[in-house]
Amino acid sequence: MGTGQWMQGVSVIGFALLLCAAGASAQEQPRLHLMPWPASLQTGSGSLRIDSSFSVALTGHTEARLDRAVQRFLRQLARQTAIPLSAAKASAKPTLTVHTDHASKEVQELGEDESYTLSITADGANIEAPTPLGAMHGLQTFLQLVDVAPDGFTAPAISIQDKPRFPWRGLMIDVARHFIPLDVLKRNLDGLEAVKMNVFHWHLSENQGFRVESKKFPRLHTLGSDGLYYTQDEIRDLIAYARDRGIRVVPEFDMPGHSTAWFAGHPELASGPGPYEVERKWGVFDPAMDPTNEKTYKFLDEFVAEMTKLFPDHYFHIGGDEVNGKQWDANQRIQEFKKSHNLATNEALQAYFSERIQKIVTKHGKAVVGWDEVFIPGVPKDIVIQSWRGQESLAKAAALGYHGILSNGYYLDLGWPAARHYAVDPMSGPAAILTPEQQKLILGGESCMWAEYINAENIDSRIWPRNAAIAERFWSPQNVTDIHSMYARLHAVSAQLEWLGLTHRTYYPEMLRRTAGPGASPDELSALRTLADVVEPVKDYTREATAPAEPTSATPLNRVVDAVPLESDVARRFGDLVDAFVSSSCRDADAAARLRAQLSAWRDNDARLQPLMQRSFLVKEIAATSQDLSSLAAVGLAALDLAAKGGAAPEDWKAKQLAVIGQAEKPKSQLLVMPAPAIQRLVEAVAAGGGCAASK
Amino acid sequence: MGTGQWMQGVSVIGFALLLCAAGASAQEQPRLHLMPWPASLQTGSGSLRIDSSFSVALTGHTEARLDRAVQRFLRQLARQTAIPLSAAKASAKPTLTVHTDHASKEVQELGEDESYTLSITADGANIEAPTPLGAMHGLQTFLQLVDVAPDGFTAPAISIQDKPRFPWRGLMIDVARHFIPLDVLKRNLDGLEAVKMNVFHWHLSENQGFRVESKKFPRLHTLGSDGLYYTQDEIRDLIAYARDRGIRVVPEFDMPGHSTAWFAGHPELASGPGPYEVERKWGVFDPAMDPTNEKTYKFLDEFVAEMTKLFPDHYFHIGGDEVNGKQWDANQRIQEFKKSHNLATNEALQAYFSERIQKIVTKHGKAVVGWDEVFIPGVPKDIVIQSWRGQESLAKAAALGYHGILSNGYYLDLGWPAARHYAVDPMSGPAAILTPEQQKLILGGESCMWAEYINAENIDSRIWPRNAAIAERFWSPQNVTDIHSMYARLHAVSAQLEWLGLTHRTYYPEMLRRTAGPGASPDELSALRTLADVVEPVKDYTREATAPAEPTSATPLNRVVDAVPLESDVARRFGDLVDAFVSSSCRDADAAARLRAQLSAWRDNDARLQPLMQRSFLVKEIAATSQDLSSLAAVGLAALDLAAKGGAAPEDWKAKQLAVIGQAEKPKSQLLVMPAPAIQRLVEAVAAGGGCAASK
Repeated sequence: MGTGQWMQGVSVIGFALLLCAAGASAQEQPRLHLMPWPASLQTGSGSLRIDSSFSVALTGHTEARLDRAVQRFLRQLARQTAIPLSAAKASAKPTLTVHTDHASKEVQELGEDESYTLSITADGANIEAPTPLGAMHGLQTFLQLVDVAPDGFTAPAISIQDKPRFPWRGLMIDVARHFIPLDVLKRNLDGLEAVKMNVFHWHLSENQGFRVESKKFPRLHTLGSDGLYYTQDEIRDLIAYARDRGIRVVPEFDMPGHSTAWFAGHPELASGPGPYEVERKWGVFDPAMDPTNEKTYKFLDEFVAEMTKLFPDHYFHIGGDEVNGKQWDANQRIQEFKKSHNLATNEALQAYFSERIQKIVTKHGKAVVGWDEVFIPGVPKDIVIQSWRGQESLAKAAALGYHGILSNGYYLDLGWPAARHYAVDPMSGPAAILTPEQQKLILGGESCMWAEYINAENIDSRIWPRNAAIAERFWSPQNVTDIHSMYARLHAVSAQLEWLGLTHRTYYPEMLRRTAGPGASPDELSALRTLADVVEPVKDYTREATAPAEPTSATPLNRVVDAVPLESDVARRFGDLVDAFVSSSCRDADAAARLRAQLSAWRDNDARLQPLMQRSFLVKEIAATSQDLSSLAAVGLAALDLAAKGGAAPEDWKAKQLAVIGQAEKPKSQLLVMPAPAIQRLVEAVAAGGGCAASK
Repeated sequence: MGTGQWMQGVSVIGFALLLCAAGASAQEQPRLHLMPWPASLQTGSGSLRIDSSFSVALTGHTEARLDRAVQRFLRQLARQTAIPLSAAKASAKPTLTVHTDHASKEVQELGEDESYTLSITADGANIEAPTPLGAMHGLQTFLQLVDVAPDGFTAPAISIQDKPRFPWRGLMIDVARHFIPLDVLKRNLDGLEAVKMNVFHWHLSENQGFRVESKKFPRLHTLGSDGLYYTQDEIRDLIAYARDRGIRVVPEFDMPGHSTAWFAGHPELASGPGPYEVERKWGVFDPAMDPTNEKTYKFLDEFVAEMTKLFPDHYFHIGGDEVNGKQWDANQRIQEFKKSHNLATNEALQAYFSERIQKIVTKHGKAVVGWDEVFIPGVPKDIVIQSWRGQESLAKAAALGYHGILSNGYYLDLGWPAARHYAVDPMSGPAAILTPEQQKLILGGESCMWAEYINAENIDSRIWPRNAAIAERFWSPQNVTDIHSMYARLHAVSAQLEWLGLTHRTYYPEMLRRTAGPGASPDELSALRTLADVVEPVKDYTREATAPAEPTSATPLNRVVDAVPLESDVARRFGDLVDAFVSSSCRDADAAARLRAQLSAWRDNDARLQPLMQRSFLVKEIAATSQDLSSLAAVGLAALDLAAKGGAAPEDWKAKQLAVIGQAEKPKSQLLVMPAPAIQRLVEAVAAGGGCAASK
């Protein structure tokens, strides 16, 4: 990894700049809000002024897509600055010249050259790229560099040489459990372009919905979607939209399980007796396609023929996950088939199905992607395994010569903080000990947005900004791992994503206000916001288990748990402040004062929230959580008092505080009070030594 | 006004409910967020539960527009509650029944019956209306009644009999000075429907732009619009959209002045030698149509023929305002024409033009609307005078038997608080002494959104929520004038308007963040917000005079003055708190504590804002304003200290404080620091008596 080390050096310089920015020479140093961080960069001196004379020229290879990219770039630059910029005009001396060597493939392919260089000086800027893909990445990098300065909008002098670490950098969106309208998908594709992701994995069928118009089998979408599906014209439109942004569209039709919605119109495909209707609940369900019936394969052959014409990408995702086998076990004919074909287990039966469907997909000129379960050693080598199980199964496949992408660790619906996703590397763990040749088989990864608890209103907030950190993991050098730098840049990139029309931040006050009612006073709303800002929905797969009533696709997503962001910035910063205070041996008076102010506000907040709790059932629901925050804050204030006094903690003091914290850490109304761990650290530090000296 | 008095009684009951809501029986009393306030209402007991079983049935007269209105209603109800509501379904017992007697006119006419009744009980709801116009108003009233309650979303039991006070209730939007895209207009039409306004006055041509595609004279839009115009298909689409919402569309083509953009393509229409190009600056300009040239009338005849076909409304607005006459004075031929036709003044010459163009409009089957200047006693009686000059000219016209609508007092661009617009009544002043017969000639009014300093990004905030208060003035009984009730309901209606997609509140943090740059920290943004929340742009017509450089249509609208709302809620509430404190003879300890907390935050804010001011030119611009806020807060704190001490104010104390306040009240960077008057009241009260006893 020689280049890796060289890149490391450069990256460290980059981060040094970021850290410097708060220091003495802050005004000289540019603040670089780049995400993903480039493979290599050198900063220069001075900056390029952005004003209404800004113009762009395209040289070398040209195509209509590049013209559109420049239009989009100018529109975006105009939004960021509010400077009216007219369409690319002929200019004797363009501000930005974009040179593209040659065309990319007619249908975007895995592994095409996406590299580019970008240089900016006070006199102008240049992007050079082998293909339009790199040119478009360079434009996005430029947009991230534009900032407000003491003398106007500027982009700093810089030289960037950039290319991705992995060729497959995707986001999966499940549009089946809750239907997601086309315009919402489009603005998310804009977001993918901004962070240089290049695959949109479209999870199109599920127990809860079949979302694609099929002209061949119209009962699939008419009976399987509640009327919520994409027409083929809309799908072509979205694919063109994605191609314009350097993004491949990989469709997924999940089979043989996760397929109840297919059976609403085509019960003959199922392994159990019908009739079926679209599933309304969440979970793993029994219905599965009948892998022993030749008619199933005839149907799928015709279906795949239609869909592979509609979706031009070389890859076709067949799902394959989570078949529980119950319908197979219950079907005498299937049991006999297993015996007569020497298929000892349901796994073997699914392998048989996978082989058959893979042959069909291959016959139609495509390569298969599937979840871990579809991997059967011996299948043709152009299959790609998408691992929801983890690096181990990915490494195992790679060791046998199979391609894979990682999704385990990147499930956006689990509510992890950005830092946790960021720490997951496709090449770590078992993958790290593969041979270089085998490592090349690991193509990258995909974040996954499963849709039990999202809809058009809150989906953006469930994807962004955290997905930008995952995008950096897939693009940037492996050693770009500094959490503080990541969060600082994520904060800025999140703001910039707003200009694309993403609603990941604007949705939040509106949804909160819904829980409070239109007549809530500013003070009431402020109290609600204070609480909401420091809670997060329960994590991982605990949401069903903790639900007040069994959730279904008809359950309104109007509760506080649906409204709050999945990662509390306020709580994270509070934690940083606690750590700074403890690190100072509890002597940092400024930190102590800030902690005290914050904790006092939290302690008093429960009383402020009372009127709203009495009026609104949606606020009443979080009463216990509100009390928990107040209790936690009281504990934190007691710890600060003790730290200020400096003496030893009274006997049992720590145990009592930890008991309160333990109580507050139990989720209520499916919410976690996020400052709890930091308050626990504070209590432990104070209890450990009078002046906190013993701790950290 | 017998009915008026009856209505007054009912209205007072309504307001009493609102005031009660904070009292002991708050839980029993519904909070009614209605705006405009209905002509008459009686509250009942209990409430109607809103859940996913909600259904609507149409009875009586039906038409596709009513079906669409119900779809829109359900979509809106689903947004407000996040309860999935499917399309109107057959139901044995619909939750809401809407009965319509008969159709309204094919093309909506002035004065059609818009009345409706709405009754809600725990068992269901009924709307009854003579026409679809009333039915649609009833649906909007229902939406405003839906609120969150202790046991779910509900609408209170109520009986409403409602009808408008005036038949002409409009909003004018100038789309010429800054082009406003169609989707932005549409969401504003949604807003008009929500507050029961029924006229969209579309100001389509100006010196700075001609915004309509003309197939007859394509040079008008191709050379007069910088490519920013509406196609005829788009216009038909918007008119249909408006009709669906009970809104008439009155087009305005301003002539003979305000017409430079016409001359870019048709210099032969002008009174002075060309060539012309689209004007970039603001103000009143010399170019005017040549009223002495028969070719002008031939052109206008053909043009009006085309446009009256495109716009179905009976009224056609010909502008007519602000001709400065300079081009006429400078044109020898025009001077000779005046002599030969006995036209002594330019006013007489314009009257000649007005008569000619009014005849043309009449010939094409339409009635003329024009600004004050077009009114010449003796013209046909179906003209409507739109008064920008004031009630006096309106009353004068009415006394002579002419119709009029009031816009003076409703100019949204002047930056007045809602209360000031709300206090303007078309029937007050000179109109109040007209005979009842003459009073009927006053048809209503229009708010006006002139577009020097608005664009697609901030226009919603310049119209809303204040326009809802004006809408109430035009709809509700004349005695509905309570300011506190108005602001309480405006606050709620503003929140509800968000669900229509209006961006009048979401735009603000985004525009502020732009001034700060994407890398601004939460604390920096909070400091910026603290200041921005209490400043307002300079008022009335002072914006050009105070501009740092001559503004043009190319000037970026990216400054703090472009971002802040036109009315500071925080400052208004602060003023209320000061008044409560002073009224208590400065003894209200809770009010004193809250004032002190607020003032301390303001005093310290300038220091917090320093880092951002050093980094961003857009924040640096408001440095003096930031200092003013800190100085004002220090004055306020000194006054509180003095009030707490209770002794007499030191000699010169008051004069010194007033000097600081006077300095802070001078606008800087085109911003006013809005808490200044309240702080002055505080200082005067404290100075007047040791314990503030002497004041108020």
